[in-house]
Amino acid sequence: MKELPSSGSFSVRWHHRVLTCRNAFTDSGEALAQLFESTPDPARVLCVLDDGLVQANQPLPARITRWAHAHPEHIDLAGSPLIVPGGEQAKNDRTVFDQVVRAIHERRICRQSFVLAVGGGAMLDAVGLAAATSHRGVRLVRLPSTTLGQADAGVGVKNGINAFGAKNLIGTFAPPWAVVNDATLLPTLSDRDWRAGLSEAIKVALLKDESLLLDIEHAAVALRTRDLDVMERITTQTADLHVAHIVHGGDPFETNRARPLDFGHWSAHQLEQMTGFRLSHGDAVAIGLMIDLQYAAIALGGSQSLVSRVASCLQSLGFPLCCDAMSDHDRLLDGLERFREHLGGTMAITMVTEPEQAHEVSVIDRDLMRQAIELTVRRGGEHMSRTG
Amino acid sequence: MKELPSSGSFSVRWHHRVLTCRNAFTDSGEALAQLFESTPDPARVLCVLDDGLVQANQPLPARITRWAHAHPEHIDLAGSPLIVPGGEQAKNDRTVFDQVVRAIHERRICRQSFVLAVGGGAMLDAVGLAAATSHRGVRLVRLPSTTLGQADAGVGVKNGINAFGAKNLIGTFAPPWAVVNDATLLPTLSDRDWRAGLSEAIKVALLKDESLLLDIEHAAVALRTRDLDVMERITTQTADLHVAHIVHGGDPFETNRARPLDFGHWSAHQLEQMTGFRLSHGDAVAIGLMIDLQYAAIALGGSQSLVSRVASCLQSLGFPLCCDAMSDHDRLLDGLERFREHLGGTMAITMVTEPEQAHEVSVIDRDLMRQAIELTVRRGGEHMSRTG
Repeated sequence: MKELPSSGSFSVRWHHRVLTCRNAFTDSGEALAQLFESTPDPARVLCVLDDGLVQANQPLPARITRWAHAHPEHIDLAGSPLIVPGGEQAKNDRTVFDQVVRAIHERRICRQSFVLAVGGGAMLDAVGLAAATSHRGVRLVRLPSTTLGQADAGVGVKNGINAFGAKNLIGTFAPPWAVVNDATLLPTLSDRDWRAGLSEAIKVALLKDESLLLDIEHAAVALRTRDLDVMERITTQTADLHVAHIVHGGDPFETNRARPLDFGHWSAHQLEQMTGFRLSHGDAVAIGLMIDLQYAAIALGGSQSLVSRVASCLQSLGFPLCCDAMSDHDRLLDGLERFREHLGGTMAITMVTEPEQAHEVSVIDRDLMRQAIELTVRRGGEHMSRTG
Repeated sequence: MKELPSSGSFSVRWHHRVLTCRNAFTDSGEALAQLFESTPDPARVLCVLDDGLVQANQPLPARITRWAHAHPEHIDLAGSPLIVPGGEQAKNDRTVFDQVVRAIHERRICRQSFVLAVGGGAMLDAVGLAAATSHRGVRLVRLPSTTLGQADAGVGVKNGINAFGAKNLIGTFAPPWAVVNDATLLPTLSDRDWRAGLSEAIKVALLKDESLLLDIEHAAVALRTRDLDVMERITTQTADLHVAHIVHGGDPFETNRARPLDFGHWSAHQLEQMTGFRLSHGDAVAIGLMIDLQYAAIALGGSQSLVSRVASCLQSLGFPLCCDAMSDHDRLLDGLERFREHLGGTMAITMVTEPEQAHEVSVIDRDLMRQAIELTVRRGGEHMSRTG
């Protein structure tokens, strides 16, 4: 077997930028319009909106159209905003994916044009896959409209949809053109969606920055009572840690086995599947973190006081720490195998024993994991019966 | 609007390697097996075969299974080879894509595992998209089984399927783990498929290497009479020029507007669509090259003798230079607009005026292009009436 002389390595460079603003389409409208590359011609832009967001913010489509028309030198809006279903259903089949690919084709969006997507994490995942694969990659500007999106999923470089019963089975790594976090999109969220980004924030804090954990602990009441300034500060710090991991962490497209940002996620994904997504991702991650912190405490000599501390913090933020599906240990533990398959052949699970002390483990003691699940259920149940 | 401090650039590095061999699964079986990364465990490999290839080479699936079983330290074959439809139908809907994604899921292929795909260019495009998007990227080893695949499509970093009537509307850039060109897969091809890689070879020669054009001209009789050594030499040289363009050309994922390797392709793609793919890609590219060379001669002062020279070469290789669809000038010229959309906003068409003298043009004179089409039809018609 002979290798061709021209075989060799090449690099592709991306710029990953996340910006914050308020009132993106009005007060920050000029700066937002300038984000789109519009030389020599105005940027052609297909706007896609999450229907849940539009229901809560009915003037939004008209506001976006006004914004585009106010900046004709930058923006050439490709028809009225396309409104698609949001929530996990957005990525549970190919409806949203197909709607966006078809609109890209019919509205003549090309590789130098843009998709501007505003919505929750699941909708951004499906729209992102459509943008990343249409014409082998159309530019994408994302405005995550949830705390989960602004802190975590919406500021990353991944997209995906579920298929054949498997979460995120189909997806790509595709850095967006830009991500804009606009805190003024958040006040209409339900309590469940409002808190959802905070379990990811605690995850990142445990992995990378104890001061963020302290900040969240001190701000728990303000967060629970929906202080927008505080939420903006926490999501911004979380997003920045997430972006730093991607840009400076050395493995932006996750070719290594280890994926520290998936801490707590093997059980979270499995619980979501088991409950048919009635358990939200944010609530599932809160439980997933507790299970793995508890496991680290009993199997790896991790700090028991950290387990209590994180449990208190999560509970004071309003997270439930147990759900009925946790009683089916066997099916929950199947999530370990699913996670291994999605990662790659060998298991690599991130465990945290102390703040900022993460370890990769390749073997999980299933009996101790059962205990960890049981202890988490008990703690969650006690809290619920106390707070009633 | 404020940018997060961690925003910044990152690079991702790929190794693009193309190898040549004969009898990949027998004589070169050891070297092929070693290509798969198998430390610490044997590589898990899902084999996908083109049914057209299997019909022509019925012992192939069993030979591949024997090869895998002979190298248990390297290969852990994930079930018997999956046989999928080949030809343009492979990428005209999502059947093949879904078959492969489902098999990846059901046979527990992970991101450290491999898909080994053996088949024609269209089938490799569909399987490649499935591999590139399953788990956000499973490793892919490609063995193109056609001259077109070995010279061109199969050695690149793109994949794609057609959708909503548009060619390659859905796809990604995804460098394969390795490409292996095995000339012993070629002898069973039909004459039409045998010659198909040669129009791409002439395209690359015109753009980058006149000596390859001379080589093809001198070897025309040997190529037409199916000399395998000569075909292997031409496809290897063509593949090497193609790989050099990707690895050393500075724009592997085609973020610039210009795409020199698409020379002759705006009309080729349109003619394929117009004929419902009855015109093969190889034959369509031959016609597409002639139309654009003819246009360059009458609109850009290009060499008229080059037009005659390439026409003679293509005809001596057996390519038809006209087809009925060419009489519908309006619909054919719509291909310019489709090509512009696929490329990006501004038109950038590569024209060749002399060997190795390529120019990007952003404006096409439609009247002169009609003349170029008509002149190409006339030349093709005359040849057909001469040769009967």
